[in-house]
Amino acid sequence: MSRFGDATAITKIEDGRYEVELDGAYGFAEAINGGYLMAVLGRAAVDASAHAHPLATAANFLRVAKPGRAEVLVDTRKEGRTAGTHLVSLVQNGDRLVDAMITTGTLDAGTEPDWTGEAPPPLPAVEDCTAFQPPSAAERGFADQVDMRFDKATVGWLDGKPSGRPEARAWFRLHDGHEPDAFALALAVDALPPVALNLGAKGWAPTVELTWHLRAVPAPGWLALHGSGRLLAGGWFDEEVEVWDSAGRLVAQSRQIARVGRAR
Amino acid sequence: MSRFGDATAITKIEDGRYEVELDGAYGFAEAINGGYLMAVLGRAAVDASAHAHPLATAANFLRVAKPGRAEVLVDTRKEGRTAGTHLVSLVQNGDRLVDAMITTGTLDAGTEPDWTGEAPPPLPAVEDCTAFQPPSAAERGFADQVDMRFDKATVGWLDGKPSGRPEARAWFRLHDGHEPDAFALALAVDALPPVALNLGAKGWAPTVELTWHLRAVPAPGWLALHGSGRLLAGGWFDEEVEVWDSAGRLVAQSRQIARVGRAR
Repeated sequence: MSRFGDATAITKIEDGRYEVELDGAYGFAEAINGGYLMAVLGRAAVDASAHAHPLATAANFLRVAKPGRAEVLVDTRKEGRTAGTHLVSLVQNGDRLVDAMITTGTLDAGTEPDWTGEAPPPLPAVEDCTAFQPPSAAERGFADQVDMRFDKATVGWLDGKPSGRPEARAWFRLHDGHEPDAFALALAVDALPPVALNLGAKGWAPTVELTWHLRAVPAPGWLALHGSGRLLAGGWFDEEVEVWDSAGRLVAQSRQIARVGRAR
Repeated sequence: MSRFGDATAITKIEDGRYEVELDGAYGFAEAINGGYLMAVLGRAAVDASAHAHPLATAANFLRVAKPGRAEVLVDTRKEGRTAGTHLVSLVQNGDRLVDAMITTGTLDAGTEPDWTGEAPPPLPAVEDCTAFQPPSAAERGFADQVDMRFDKATVGWLDGKPSGRPEARAWFRLHDGHEPDAFALALAVDALPPVALNLGAKGWAPTVELTWHLRAVPAPGWLALHGSGRLLAGGWFDEEVEVWDSAGRLVAQSRQIARVGRAR
């Protein structure tokens, strides 16, 4: 098993109830990464379902998760031939931290797309990107788990020069060699720095709701993450991420709504 | 009250439990429109919350709703100063039809955007669009409630000439004079014909999961709906809708994942 595999492993206590040991190594500053939590919830949904993949995940982040023991509760709302629907909750010390509706289904790795939209402009080559290290030790946990190489055009905010467009783009893989799968994609869709940083926002931007869709079984290798946004208003911003795999396929799509960060 | 207002009105039975009379006039062929159902659920969430608007709605469509009495159950998962999170379910004759996670909050109608992305290319003028009528009486229920004027470039599928791109664009308003609000936007984001029709798909395309975000309080007048998609593969397709109001503001964003329709 990879560290990511271990960190997202769930143990069944009884039908619809699982135990997990949340790994603080997937933390970043104030909180454990939401993508990591979605990966844990996705594993539980798939275990409780007749299907192999989390096709749609709509997650609400209610409270910050801490490293250590937590429970995952799966309430199957419908199990059908094509898809299952599950309400999946992460509970720690009696507090509900995340509520997610997860639609399970089974994708065939050999499926050829009937139609795909135009790919976004390609990222610069991996060697032309930057692997910035977060300044504080508290932020390095997550950064030590993922190997991300950022399109330099999208990290101007690091030097006080935000691009003025809500954008973030990077190559992504796990340092532990865990190849892309549906659960690594859950991590990938919430791995980029908030796109609002390039609009001059500062600090951590708490995700309130994030929905992502698994569109294909990803190929091994680097994933390309393309993050963008459409509107920042009244303290709220949206962030869309498309994930393309090494075979040039659109494998995941996400949108989240988040609060603009407060400067620290 | 407008017909839409009446049709989405809820009556509180007790805390977290509401009654609604589903109006078959918002049906289209096999099913009552999902956007109408989301409007009903949004009203219940707001009633149960200290906040005024449904900011994020992630809805899972489990079973087809029939006209007549139904209940809406609201389970408040968290109520915060900025946002509340509610699990809202539509139940009819003992069956759960829709499960939605709804984040409530309050948007200020006077908020100016800090940043907005480029608007999509404008729709043709209303008078240059087409108000097609569905061929069967069963499909006219919904079409009689909404006044939609379609960009002719996106309804080629009606004449057996799909454009080859997953797209649907139209002007939208309610025939009953109900001006745009958060609940009419719930209807709007699920009002377009499936974008997959322009890829040669036929028939009704059941929505499995739809998440939409209210981004601003809409101005009175026509709404412009811009529908597009990114991938059709393995019988699944995504559909994104942006709604822009008459003041030129992005007021709603949605993405749904749906099954390719079966020809009838």
